[in-house]
Amino acid sequence: MGKKRILSGMRPTGRLHLGHYFGALQNYVRLQDEYDCFFMIADWHALTSEWQDTSQIPENTRELGIDWLSVGLDPQRCTMFVQSAVKQHAELSLILGMFTPVPWLERCPTYKEQIEQIQNRDLSNIGFLNYPVLQAADITIYDAVAVPIGEDQVPHLEMCREMVRRVNFIYGQVLVEPQPILSPAPRLLGIDGRKMSKSYGNAIYLSDPPDEVSRKAKLMVTDPARVRRQDPGNPDVCSVYAYQKLVSTDKLDWIETGCRTASIGCMDCKGLLIERLNALLDPIRGRRRELEANPRIVDRVLAEGNHRAREAAEATMKRVRKALHLFEE
Amino acid sequence: MGKKRILSGMRPTGRLHLGHYFGALQNYVRLQDEYDCFFMIADWHALTSEWQDTSQIPENTRELGIDWLSVGLDPQRCTMFVQSAVKQHAELSLILGMFTPVPWLERCPTYKEQIEQIQNRDLSNIGFLNYPVLQAADITIYDAVAVPIGEDQVPHLEMCREMVRRVNFIYGQVLVEPQPILSPAPRLLGIDGRKMSKSYGNAIYLSDPPDEVSRKAKLMVTDPARVRRQDPGNPDVCSVYAYQKLVSTDKLDWIETGCRTASIGCMDCKGLLIERLNALLDPIRGRRRELEANPRIVDRVLAEGNHRAREAAEATMKRVRKALHLFEE
Repeated sequence: MGKKRILSGMRPTGRLHLGHYFGALQNYVRLQDEYDCFFMIADWHALTSEWQDTSQIPENTRELGIDWLSVGLDPQRCTMFVQSAVKQHAELSLILGMFTPVPWLERCPTYKEQIEQIQNRDLSNIGFLNYPVLQAADITIYDAVAVPIGEDQVPHLEMCREMVRRVNFIYGQVLVEPQPILSPAPRLLGIDGRKMSKSYGNAIYLSDPPDEVSRKAKLMVTDPARVRRQDPGNPDVCSVYAYQKLVSTDKLDWIETGCRTASIGCMDCKGLLIERLNALLDPIRGRRRELEANPRIVDRVLAEGNHRAREAAEATMKRVRKALHLFEE
Repeated sequence: MGKKRILSGMRPTGRLHLGHYFGALQNYVRLQDEYDCFFMIADWHALTSEWQDTSQIPENTRELGIDWLSVGLDPQRCTMFVQSAVKQHAELSLILGMFTPVPWLERCPTYKEQIEQIQNRDLSNIGFLNYPVLQAADITIYDAVAVPIGEDQVPHLEMCREMVRRVNFIYGQVLVEPQPILSPAPRLLGIDGRKMSKSYGNAIYLSDPPDEVSRKAKLMVTDPARVRRQDPGNPDVCSVYAYQKLVSTDKLDWIETGCRTASIGCMDCKGLLIERLNALLDPIRGRRRELEANPRIVDRVLAEGNHRAREAAEATMKRVRKALHLFEE
């Protein structure tokens, strides 16, 4: 018995930051032991928001590959590939769309939310409405039994499961119904206390040099009630403490007691955080430097991944075409 | 200078009838001389209405190939192919969808009409809403300069032209904007006086044997005011006369005068029609019998057509991927 297959993906829309690391990448690295992991650079999905200017997609695709290899995704143990290099995703998406009622898509919470909130992008196109259909194709084309996702992606996965049930109800056991693997880590906040995001300019990137990490950490918002050094603080409302719980588990007593009694100041606490973040990022930066010096390594990893992904995807499509009486030469 | 490219397609949803012949096929045969014609068996489009039962699609695909060859489409001079055998259509459709506002599709007259009128099929899926996007991909992937269409398809072609302009406005001269070639023939009515359609059971098929053509022609509705043999009739309101204008051009005086003066009866008129229709259909039936006896001929024609279509489509996609900065290995 081989390992069970899972799929996850990220859009190539910019460099990865600590929010990605603790929210997903750290989990990816662990999942490699347990599952046959397919990690997808979702460049077609990037078009939904970037269609008016795609010029950054090639560089972002390469950067994402570098970020993934740098944090420890191992091409010997997982398959890293580019979505648009596997045309079968488009074929299955087209077919699944025949089974997907428009109102399912219109009612999707992330769709409604983003149509309302994102003002600097035109999301009125059918490509954006169709996002969950393409995503369902991404998953089911690899017979993935599970998908590591955040809470916000649960409705998408539910819709994918509905599509699978519809197809299987009519044509037999054609597609595999995937389960969610909810990410164990909480969403990290950016240095300004809002959700960490490239577009808010509040992110600490995996590729930031040590002094940049230090500069940004010093700007991080803490308990707003702790105005002066001698005021006691409340770690529960401090975004720095959320980071400490991830990187300074051996020092939480010192931090918590120190903060609540004002025996340490925010700068003491941040000093520790900066030290720990840089200790975490140092080996990642080192691997990144190597990969930047040898860009063909990333190209080769993706080419091999694309090849493996195409073979797996084509095997599924042969089964789908047969079950749905579609043309096969 | 080679001939200019055009594309047309039909859905494999059943045998072709005289409405198809006079409305499109006769024109297809002529267009072969003037253009580099690509004729597509639109099996993915068939899914929009047949997704709940696709079992007839393979037979209908083969039947459509036989009908086309029987009426005189010449694989030496045109390219006959199966849409789903050319995966690039799905790829370009996905990309064009990123540029197509949902309201354009919702406002399309054929969409609104069919959603309202077709009761025996579930058309609520995004695959049906996306129909004009896939159609735009079908056309533009071959750099078709024109498309032979009926009046009802004009809004779809307009939408295709809008998509092309949007892509070209942002990324330069990437896609060719197609022109309509309006079919010169009027829509023929079925034997009951409604639009000729498989679903109305009122069609005369190209594959009907002579006695079936005769039986159906005798049932055709004529001028309802001409109740008795000796009543004069009005050819302008007679659906038989519409056929005569296509197949008995040398006898129109005899028919018109005879009908208006009641010197001929409807059965005399229909007798001529039956003779002419069978004279038209006889060679078509003969070629059909040959092809049915040698089914591998159709398979081979389609395999060769698919190959040619894939090469042409891939050439366009290489250009599209490059212009839109998409991944290319």
